[in-house]
Amino acid sequence: MAGTLSAFMQEYKDVLEREMKELITNLQAPSVLKKAMDYSLQAGGKRIRPMLLFATLASFGKNPRTGLAAAAALEMIHTYSLIHDDLPSMDDDDLRRGQPTNHKVFGEAAAILAGDALLTYAFQVIAQSNSYSSEHKVTLIEWLAEAAGPEGMVGGQMADIEGETKKLTLDELEYIHKNKTGCLLAYSVMAGALLAGANEEQLAHFRQYAFHIGLAFQIQDDILDVEGSEEKLGKRVGSDSANHKSTYPALLTMEGAKKQLAKHAEAAQAALLQTHTDSALLLELVDLIATRDQ
Amino acid sequence: MAGTLSAFMQEYKDVLEREMKELITNLQAPSVLKKAMDYSLQAGGKRIRPMLLFATLASFGKNPRTGLAAAAALEMIHTYSLIHDDLPSMDDDDLRRGQPTNHKVFGEAAAILAGDALLTYAFQVIAQSNSYSSEHKVTLIEWLAEAAGPEGMVGGQMADIEGETKKLTLDELEYIHKNKTGCLLAYSVMAGALLAGANEEQLAHFRQYAFHIGLAFQIQDDILDVEGSEEKLGKRVGSDSANHKSTYPALLTMEGAKKQLAKHAEAAQAALLQTHTDSALLLELVDLIATRDQ
Repeated sequence: MAGTLSAFMQEYKDVLEREMKELITNLQAPSVLKKAMDYSLQAGGKRIRPMLLFATLASFGKNPRTGLAAAAALEMIHTYSLIHDDLPSMDDDDLRRGQPTNHKVFGEAAAILAGDALLTYAFQVIAQSNSYSSEHKVTLIEWLAEAAGPEGMVGGQMADIEGETKKLTLDELEYIHKNKTGCLLAYSVMAGALLAGANEEQLAHFRQYAFHIGLAFQIQDDILDVEGSEEKLGKRVGSDSANHKSTYPALLTMEGAKKQLAKHAEAAQAALLQTHTDSALLLELVDLIATRDQ
Repeated sequence: MAGTLSAFMQEYKDVLEREMKELITNLQAPSVLKKAMDYSLQAGGKRIRPMLLFATLASFGKNPRTGLAAAAALEMIHTYSLIHDDLPSMDDDDLRRGQPTNHKVFGEAAAILAGDALLTYAFQVIAQSNSYSSEHKVTLIEWLAEAAGPEGMVGGQMADIEGETKKLTLDELEYIHKNKTGCLLAYSVMAGALLAGANEEQLAHFRQYAFHIGLAFQIQDDILDVEGSEEKLGKRVGSDSANHKSTYPALLTMEGAKKQLAKHAEAAQAALLQTHTDSALLLELVDLIATRDQ
């Protein structure tokens, strides 16, 4: 990770985490619910989605802090999805980034409710923000619900569960990942572009950029499940293969998956150049996503 | 139930159910997810919350259909809460209105996702509606998220779970019900008043009305769990007592609970008269809520 992106990410990771802490502290809600929400929100990670939003604002020369409420909402939705995915009736995971999962600490009922609360609060945070016009709020909420709901992430998760028991085609695998992971990554970029005042043509190029980094992200995820370090990932590797799950390396061979990854990374960078913005940070983010080791 | 309210409710129940059916049909999502969402949405009930919204619009002489998107969103959120409440790790109910609960039909993972999808889609439906100004959409979404999220329904549900193992005071019991049931009932009325163009003073009186019908609703719920008909309710009665749950009859005696119910019903009607609207339907709805047998 180059110096510029590294410093940018450290600065805005702190800003984001302080904002989310404050948003939870301010809630009038039972303390155990607030604790369960905060536990998973503060469990870290690189905050890739908020960083995409902040970096897109920066590419237009806008202050990334303008995107703070939208970024906090986005990370709340990503976090709720992890809490629900880890539940015993879903992936049944005990560890997430090396820490016990939410339901292991707070119990299953509280984990379901903490997820429901984060999902709902995300929309409240955007609606209550003082930083956006009503028109921008409505578009942010519409796009976020599309990306996170039945036509996006939840739809992808449902298809993923259905697909676990059969061998998928590459098209089916792409559908799952486009929805399960891609839509919310795409929203991250599109929300930043909207708030920065991008025109229709720029929005279309940002959409292409986001589509390709979404697939690159997922292919690298599958590669890491084979070649990654358990210590760095904070979770067991090899589980996809053990579960006979359809993955890019399984469908394309490891060499084919890496070629596909490089192809999407290049396409993302090409789309970015078409936006005619100052996209150094977003270009570096492609490398980060395509070569990440955790 | 008097003739006017009865005809009104039948007409708008049909309108609402057709609208919800269409909203699900139009979704680009895996068919099993759509089936699971539709199953619980069409499982019936009197649609009290949408009726409050429609009747509030009618009390201002407005066309109740103006409220259709907001009412569908509201019923989606109410329905998601029932699906999640029924889960094995929550209330572990096999039957709801005489039908198998969502997770009994579709499995636990799909039921969690169907709930998540309904919750998210509710906000999308309001944001995408052609019927409201951006300002009204933002207020509807903000109020709905407050009523349904950690500061409302989800907070109440968490407090309810925590309270199951101890004897509650009347204040604690009111906190739970105000949040778990009252906030969303209040939203139903407030959303209708907002869309009808109510002034601040009228909004305050509608808020009082909603607060009292919320508590009346819950007290009657507790009474029905002792005196109700299993056939009409479509679920077992006596479960509160068997679970040593704090209820109004348990805390106040049955006679005391009925007095309290009558007090809230009267206060609701008094608040309504202060709104100076044509509130015949809303007055009848108080009776319906206070004397319902299912």
